[in-house]
Amino acid sequence: MNRPAPRSTFLAACRDLLGRDHVLTDDADTGPYLVDQRKRYTGRTLAVLRPADAPQLAALVRLCVAHRVPMVPQGGNTGLAGGATPDASGRQVVISLRRLNRIREVDAANMTLTAEAGCVLADVQAAAQAADRLFPLSLAAEGSCTIGGNLATNAGGTAVLRYGNARELCLGLEVVTPQGDLWNGLRGLRKDNTGYDLRDLFIGAEGTLGLITAATLKLFAPPMARMTALAALDSPAQALALLNLAQRMAGPLLTGFELMSDFCLRLVAQVFPQHRYPLFAKPCAQPYAQTVLLELSDNESEAHARELLERLLAAGVEQGVVRDAIVANSLAQSNALWHLRESIPLAQSATGLNIKHDIAVPVSQVPAFIAATDPLVQQIAPGARMVTFGHLGDGNLHYNVMAPEGVDPARFLAQYQASVTAAVHDSVHAHRGTISAEHGLGQFKRDAAAQYKSPVELALMRALKAAFDPLGLMNPGKVLPD
Amino acid sequence: MNRPAPRSTFLAACRDLLGRDHVLTDDADTGPYLVDQRKRYTGRTLAVLRPADAPQLAALVRLCVAHRVPMVPQGGNTGLAGGATPDASGRQVVISLRRLNRIREVDAANMTLTAEAGCVLADVQAAAQAADRLFPLSLAAEGSCTIGGNLATNAGGTAVLRYGNARELCLGLEVVTPQGDLWNGLRGLRKDNTGYDLRDLFIGAEGTLGLITAATLKLFAPPMARMTALAALDSPAQALALLNLAQRMAGPLLTGFELMSDFCLRLVAQVFPQHRYPLFAKPCAQPYAQTVLLELSDNESEAHARELLERLLAAGVEQGVVRDAIVANSLAQSNALWHLRESIPLAQSATGLNIKHDIAVPVSQVPAFIAATDPLVQQIAPGARMVTFGHLGDGNLHYNVMAPEGVDPARFLAQYQASVTAAVHDSVHAHRGTISAEHGLGQFKRDAAAQYKSPVELALMRALKAAFDPLGLMNPGKVLPD
Repeated sequence: MNRPAPRSTFLAACRDLLGRDHVLTDDADTGPYLVDQRKRYTGRTLAVLRPADAPQLAALVRLCVAHRVPMVPQGGNTGLAGGATPDASGRQVVISLRRLNRIREVDAANMTLTAEAGCVLADVQAAAQAADRLFPLSLAAEGSCTIGGNLATNAGGTAVLRYGNARELCLGLEVVTPQGDLWNGLRGLRKDNTGYDLRDLFIGAEGTLGLITAATLKLFAPPMARMTALAALDSPAQALALLNLAQRMAGPLLTGFELMSDFCLRLVAQVFPQHRYPLFAKPCAQPYAQTVLLELSDNESEAHARELLERLLAAGVEQGVVRDAIVANSLAQSNALWHLRESIPLAQSATGLNIKHDIAVPVSQVPAFIAATDPLVQQIAPGARMVTFGHLGDGNLHYNVMAPEGVDPARFLAQYQASVTAAVHDSVHAHRGTISAEHGLGQFKRDAAAQYKSPVELALMRALKAAFDPLGLMNPGKVLPD
Repeated sequence: MNRPAPRSTFLAACRDLLGRDHVLTDDADTGPYLVDQRKRYTGRTLAVLRPADAPQLAALVRLCVAHRVPMVPQGGNTGLAGGATPDASGRQVVISLRRLNRIREVDAANMTLTAEAGCVLADVQAAAQAADRLFPLSLAAEGSCTIGGNLATNAGGTAVLRYGNARELCLGLEVVTPQGDLWNGLRGLRKDNTGYDLRDLFIGAEGTLGLITAATLKLFAPPMARMTALAALDSPAQALALLNLAQRMAGPLLTGFELMSDFCLRLVAQVFPQHRYPLFAKPCAQPYAQTVLLELSDNESEAHARELLERLLAAGVEQGVVRDAIVANSLAQSNALWHLRESIPLAQSATGLNIKHDIAVPVSQVPAFIAATDPLVQQIAPGARMVTFGHLGDGNLHYNVMAPEGVDPARFLAQYQASVTAAVHDSVHAHRGTISAEHGLGQFKRDAAAQYKSPVELALMRALKAAFDPLGLMNPGKVLPD
């Protein structure tokens, strides 16, 4: 299918179309585009191409199709599954979307914003804020990831409990198809039932069905106050009981519900001794096994949010679910509590490589999943330390496994990564969960995911890919096994 | 493609598979399945087939494929676009999903419920309620429509502002593919990024890509209180300003925001004189041009909801947006206010046929759309009476046109339906809206929708249809023009 085109003819045509400055071929220029965020993959490329806007990108895709050049789209290059890294052949081009970085429209009364794919997430948040609106998608890489990449991977983050994933925050898309046609589906409608849902097909497809060039996103009235609390508990089952109570008493005001095991917090305290865990200060015979961070977003007032949190936690204590609790008494203290949660992955990084799992199970299955899986990991890797934390409200755990005390992390990884991950994924599957909750498949989890999918589902996915991209030029080797 | 199979062989095989009682061929038995809810379409059929469960349905589809028999799926037969009515050829079978009516699982802690396609919506709501949970999809036909039909048409209703359409309420599906394979995608996960979004492709496809047999649905903690208010205003622009204020002050507690023009309420008062419009009782020189019904759903208390509504409406009065208002002081009064809103379509039916439009525009465009379109309708049909009401919070208007006083409704329809609808749809399109907000396309709006879609979008839709259903046997003639 891929008849090799004269490389020089193709590159000359690219330079004519994009301008010389936007066709990168020197190793020094292309280097940063060829390694993924976690440094798991290093690729080679024919060129890094940087179109200026959607029509130019459409023309570029037609050019690549004419020359049968495979295309790897890339936004902020912050993906965690190698979805934006080309293969080692040197025959693929990287198409950077970063120059498509205009906020095209903010329609405050419609609660929508239209941004181009290359806009950095933090810039989208800022544009919403400037119009006195909230764009709630929020994740660690928000200062450098792009909204196009967020949508291509259906990013999750910390606000999914209330606002949903990137998918649920998108009303319309503009997409360049694998044929190089520009589809304008930038609808700002809350209800529209006029045919097949193309939008959701492109979202989460990681560029394998077409290239997202712009999106119309949902905005919200910003809350008057965000208020955070910590609750200490004995077990994941108690955390689930508290979640139930919080959903009953706070309803949609509950915007965060994060679970952190005792070991996670001790790790933070060890690496960042300047952090204070407020509940440590209280006298207790032994540390609490689990801590939950709760966040309310309130459209009334800070006082209302705090009073509701206090009532909620008092009910938790009364019902024997919560052992101890603290409600932030200022925005600064709220932020400090969040900072504690956000320091867990940083503390992990500081202590060396570990075996990471981005998994989700039904919320009701979280306690059973942890109870069943911890012993499996210990059987394989005795003494391994479990760093279990995450978005309990979404059933999404970062179920990570650290080397035992005193064991070299790199050696531990080399020895156990494959077997531990296989056991964890099998257990996830047995608990009706997913092995990729919010990071996508890319090349990293492509084969593992296929292993757990039914032949029917794989056949439907292949039928879609063949229908949209019959030449197989769109981000080949990602999502679906070849 | 469709080589005619001996009718008797096919029907005998159907009887072997389903049992004699579930293959209906007598006119008396099949009659009710062959006319749509609005009596716009009457079809003929080879047989009405009533499988007992999903595996039997899969076998039935394989049988239909082997005999090249086109299939028309049907749930409660309450659709408003003729999507479940067979054509006049008598060669299509109707497949009724009504016997797939089991609630398979309620997982209260996961806030999910798994129901088969033929479950009546009200029964799904009741199953959720029995587990102390809320399934918020709610619409006029809920006593007879099925959840499978709701998903196949991505039904909307009155709670979309807060909870979304049927699409947003579904986490997973089970589907029989056009090849007769059974796909189990019944995931109860809040985050899952492992490949193409098949779920959303089947939702809203009206049975043209496969048959939904079961769904895992999102549940919510039921609110402690629902509280309703009416606000009288001067214009749709004021209603939009009030919506903005309500979203700011009540945030996600706002679950209903319905606009009703003065004429709508006068029509209700005329047809149902027993209904009292509370704001009529107050002395006013002239009637209010617009009335808004607001609903809050509150997880704290009735008192909290009422106090918030009162504060919100007081702010509206202070800002010069609201002219008068009343907050319900009991659940009974809340229901009475909703009843007023729900009586508008009934009052319309009682006064004869009218030209109906189920349209949506961006919320911010509603005032401009009404201002631009009312005169267009008057130019075409002078004296026509506008019955404009609907879900303003979603930009979704039931923009209906009644005959002038004293003119026979049937004659009016015959004379003006085509030209008025064309003008309304053109105006909707010019305001970046949709000509089918919540009723789908079926056969009724199939061609009109195609007219407003770009060639790129139509080509993508056709590619999908060809990839999934190459024989064209799944609900042919619906959604996409032949």
